[in-house]
Amino acid sequence: MRFFSDNAAAVHPALFKAMAEADRLDTAYDSDAWSQRLDRAFSDLFEREVTALWVTTGTAANCLALAGMVHPYGGILCHREAHIQVDEAGAPEFFTGGAKLLLVDGPGAKLTVDAVEDARSRIRADVHQVQADALSITNATEYGLVYSAAETAALGAWAKDHGLGFHLDGARFANAVVSTGASPAALTWKAGVDALSFGFVKNGGLSAEALILFDPALADGIRRRRKRSGHLLSKGRYLAAQLLAMIEGDLWLSNARSANEAARRLAEAAGARLVHPVEANEVFLKVTAEEAAALRAEGFDFYDWGVGEARLVTSWDQDMQAVDRLAEAIRRL
Amino acid sequence: MRFFSDNAAAVHPALFKAMAEADRLDTAYDSDAWSQRLDRAFSDLFEREVTALWVTTGTAANCLALAGMVHPYGGILCHREAHIQVDEAGAPEFFTGGAKLLLVDGPGAKLTVDAVEDARSRIRADVHQVQADALSITNATEYGLVYSAAETAALGAWAKDHGLGFHLDGARFANAVVSTGASPAALTWKAGVDALSFGFVKNGGLSAEALILFDPALADGIRRRRKRSGHLLSKGRYLAAQLLAMIEGDLWLSNARSANEAARRLAEAAGARLVHPVEANEVFLKVTAEEAAALRAEGFDFYDWGVGEARLVTSWDQDMQAVDRLAEAIRRL
Amino acid sequence: MRFFSDNAAAVHPALFKAMAEADRLDTAYDSDAWSQRLDRAFSDLFEREVTALWVTTGTAANCLALAGMVHPYGGILCHREAHIQVDEAGAPEFFTGGAKLLLVDGPGAKLTVDAVEDARSRIRADVHQVQADALSITNATEYGLVYSAAETAALGAWAKDHGLGFHLDGARFANAVVSTGASPAALTWKAGVDALSFGFVKNGGLSAEALILFDPALADGIRRRRKRSGHLLSKGRYLAAQLLAMIEGDLWLSNARSANEAARRLAEAAGARLVHPVEANEVFLKVTAEEAAALRAEGFDFYDWGVGEARLVTSWDQDMQAVDRLAEAIRRL
Amino acid sequence: MRFFSDNAAAVHPALFKAMAEADRLDTAYDSDAWSQRLDRAFSDLFEREVTALWVTTGTAANCLALAGMVHPYGGILCHREAHIQVDEAGAPEFFTGGAKLLLVDGPGAKLTVDAVEDARSRIRADVHQVQADALSITNATEYGLVYSAAETAALGAWAKDHGLGFHLDGARFANAVVSTGASPAALTWKAGVDALSFGFVKNGGLSAEALILFDPALADGIRRRRKRSGHLLSKGRYLAAQLLAMIEGDLWLSNARSANEAARRLAEAAGARLVHPVEANEVFLKVTAEEAAALRAEGFDFYDWGVGEARLVTSWDQDMQAVDRLAEAIRRL
Repeated sequence: MRFFSDNAAAVHPALFKAMAEADRLDTAYDSDAWSQRLDRAFSDLFEREVTALWVTTGTAANCLALAGMVHPYGGILCHREAHIQVDEAGAPEFFTGGAKLLLVDGPGAKLTVDAVEDARSRIRADVHQVQADALSITNATEYGLVYSAAETAALGAWAKDHGLGFHLDGARFANAVVSTGASPAALTWKAGVDALSFGFVKNGGLSAEALILFDPALADGIRRRRKRSGHLLSKGRYLAAQLLAMIEGDLWLSNARSANEAARRLAEAAGARLVHPVEANEVFLKVTAEEAAALRAEGFDFYDWGVGEARLVTSWDQDMQAVDRLAEAIRRL
Repeated sequence: MRFFSDNAAAVHPALFKAMAEADRLDTAYDSDAWSQRLDRAFSDLFEREVTALWVTTGTAANCLALAGMVHPYGGILCHREAHIQVDEAGAPEFFTGGAKLLLVDGPGAKLTVDAVEDARSRIRADVHQVQADALSITNATEYGLVYSAAETAALGAWAKDHGLGFHLDGARFANAVVSTGASPAALTWKAGVDALSFGFVKNGGLSAEALILFDPALADGIRRRRKRSGHLLSKGRYLAAQLLAMIEGDLWLSNARSANEAARRLAEAAGARLVHPVEANEVFLKVTAEEAAALRAEGFDFYDWGVGEARLVTSWDQDMQAVDRLAEAIRRL
Repeated sequence: MRFFSDNAAAVHPALFKAMAEADRLDTAYDSDAWSQRLDRAFSDLFEREVTALWVTTGTAANCLALAGMVHPYGGILCHREAHIQVDEAGAPEFFTGGAKLLLVDGPGAKLTVDAVEDARSRIRADVHQVQADALSITNATEYGLVYSAAETAALGAWAKDHGLGFHLDGARFANAVVSTGASPAALTWKAGVDALSFGFVKNGGLSAEALILFDPALADGIRRRRKRSGHLLSKGRYLAAQLLAMIEGDLWLSNARSANEAARRLAEAAGARLVHPVEANEVFLKVTAEEAAALRAEGFDFYDWGVGEARLVTSWDQDMQAVDRLAEAIRRL
Repeated sequence: MRFFSDNAAAVHPALFKAMAEADRLDTAYDSDAWSQRLDRAFSDLFEREVTALWVTTGTAANCLALAGMVHPYGGILCHREAHIQVDEAGAPEFFTGGAKLLLVDGPGAKLTVDAVEDARSRIRADVHQVQADALSITNATEYGLVYSAAETAALGAWAKDHGLGFHLDGARFANAVVSTGASPAALTWKAGVDALSFGFVKNGGLSAEALILFDPALADGIRRRRKRSGHLLSKGRYLAAQLLAMIEGDLWLSNARSANEAARRLAEAAGARLVHPVEANEVFLKVTAEEAAALRAEGFDFYDWGVGEARLVTSWDQDMQAVDRLAEAIRRL
């Protein structure tokens, strides 16, 4: 019974079905019929014209977006524990030509206007210091907290006031939409977001994420950077088909709903053991080494998180009986 | 009846079957069971220990390999019409940190020792000029010529003599193996090749190419560069499964055999119209605009190639009746 | 009697005098009194508002300018024998983040509208090929030819028509101004030039070149890139003083006049031996190995230029008696 | 009476004299007679064979050294307030191709083995996190503390144990040598340092710093990077002459001795107001805004350092009467 990563779950069958339907000769790269439908489909979802590009990883989506927003000599304000800082192997520096990540603190890997303003205000404007060109947040955060539409909009307004681009790492955007009840539009462009890395792979996808550009000026450069970074697959229709299968019929929402519900049940059981509020599909627990061992002895698989904590991540296809058994086991600890 | 690109063909059903078998929870990135089998499977194929990494595009394979071989201040000797120079949007410069492509001429996009030696000898060794760090060739070439094992070995020996890395862009390596009758080993490491971009997508694949490293010193850095360039997919097992399906049972060879045979039939029909000898799955024809229009009027789809030439590319799934009809139509011109 | 490089000549005494006057405490970098006078002084020279930055090398001036004009995924049209392509060790690729030099042919390293248009028109607009973002020319060229104001303006108009930045490498700009009789304005911004690398070191300078920006939008980014590339010296006043000494009192013009006159005398003597017309301070001669040896035996020092040619470069401080002796010796050959 | 920066002081007259002696035609770049003497002169100073390269800024020296030590996908352990992190505008990222600065804490911008080990041990070895390739320290630190030979050697041993390169930013190396009484050798290669940015400009220099390579394997690549970054001046002999004038006759030591003595007098006067021990030529004082204003009213010029602190920097040419007057004024506060 595995609770260690939504990255490792199986693929939703609808995606295989969609790929099978795309399995015939068409033109290559992204001029095929499926890729050509993406802008329309995502524009409908976001209630405005957007450019939607498939890419194969969240890292690529994040870093292509950031490369379109910052100068090589610029900086990106982000949380000290943001995925782009901690777990992307220097990809932001690679794609941007060496821009600097300017680190900001905050509980649960979540940023506030006060925190980013404090960080920005300590940068001298002279040529000796790297200036912030963009702000990047993650929703849901690396610790499973969500930004509401209002919180996002406050950051977006602040970014615009200071002439910064605004990027949203939405590796778990679906979980945030479900959790907040806000519309995709309200959590993005209506809140000032210029580009969204819209994650599907953690949510039942196979190999397609979407990069959504709300700022039309970004599109041409990012298309070229996508090719230049080796991310323009020749048989792109199989990626487009995955994305279409996800958003047509709201599969992305029902998948996220399942994962969030599983996490909610675990959170309820965890009570005072919770390290962070559980607002998406991640549960951080205080457990002793003995307690963790006890849970593992019952067949539950998860990661330790530093000393004295454990991370449980739920997936779209989590067996709810196993979830309830784990909840029970946590209660028993 | 389409003859315009092997990039656009359908995917071989065996790959979907293999992906379906991989469709269950496993660990992420490349520590899953399928990815872990790659080194073994490709080592068997190449008759020596190799490191085999999945990537999603030939551009990524080429440029990761080159980045592992050259200094940012170094250069790559390649043909003036090499894919890395002409059709990868500056990806080699991006991945290497700005290395320079040092262009060499030769008929059919094919290099000889004389040609590369001539190019290299014109570079002054001082710090004002970019020094060659690597040699990159394409087999089969962009014009469908092949390098024999002996031709490759001559270039490999020359590269070693001059301290250069040796990269082989094998987007159509399968076609070259079938055409030459040489073993994969003979066309690569036995001939001095350090890294091979082993193409599958043009040969019935979906989204997985293999980067084969014969020089063990390259592996750690290239693994890190793969992640840093956003090319480490979290559900890598679906890529690994594609590659395994291709090489186990020699599907890659039977697919290439079909494509080469189709091209052979067209070449036979074309006779004196051929611009280059047909040694793989590409046929370049001299045709007037009227003749090209006549072929298209009969339902044949292909690219013009400059003025007065046409390019026909055959695929693993080419309908042989359509091929014969096109051959007939060419004869009738 | 040395004729091998204007790079190696002594420094004009006025520059030492100017540095001695700047030799007192002031603020660092470029906020000192001397650096603050540069914009005014060069604006007067160019008859419009410009931003003038000191840098220590022509390579830095060229590449900072280009980095301000091109995307990392873009290209720079330039002559196949341009200094930025041949003798800057990949610096343009370094400063631009990997932009590609798109090479154009033409006699004497000189470009024409036809030649650049031909090169540009062969680039497909799709994302697979690198698009030209800038045009760079050298005046006087690497072979000592000059562009007239009209020739420059034709290229400038073409560049604007195609949305390209226009950079002028003026390592020997002074020689071109003297040779053409055109004003600095006519050879630059009036002809569409956006940025000029204004060379002084080959013309009696010590360690200061000027980067002149006619496009105000370039200034902020290039100032930041100058610092980021380690080119913002803390005691900038000594560089500014050199530049001011050069342009106040027209020392740059009188120095270039001497060098051009020396070259003219050699050209007159050379007659039919000239490989290129002599329009600045470089003379390329056809000479056999025996003839070159004979000249050297008389004490003349110069470079061979490939087989059967010699390059003579004259400097601001060339001893005219030595020049006349060399002219005489050439006539005697 | 200025105490705001050693960067802004005048140049020692011996350097102008040395440049005047170098003011005749020689070969360009660094093949002239003066540049050719550098390796010998610095090898004598450091009691072993070294490669010594002139560059014009400390930023260039630091970043060329680091680029020679780290992979683009690697990291550099340094203090959170190191000059390379805070005041070089992203130059380390530019020169290294995007390596990450891995920040370590410690009082007075000084690192200890415990602190660097703690930082390093928190990096997972997997491909998702940037691995440390080098350690960089500053001696004297940005707050005027010095590393003894033993402290440096402890860090050097640790770096070697972990396979890291070891870089020393010696913008104020002279002050550290004077302060510790240790030999240049003891503070560098005997302590495991691979490359030293040896500062002269803050110590009475004009435009020449020295990059000293103790690891011979670094030399070729760094020479090429120097050219590629636009830092190979054509009239290098004037830079070499400055360096030779500095080290021949120990001018660098006597200059640093003066600056340190001036700082010592101020420190003595400051007593309990000192924020950090004064071990080189920088004095950080606790002062109220009123006190700072009072000092300025007496004609003393210096920088505020955040709220409630002031930074005084002494130079080689500080008027000792002014120093004593400032000391007196501080006592009176």
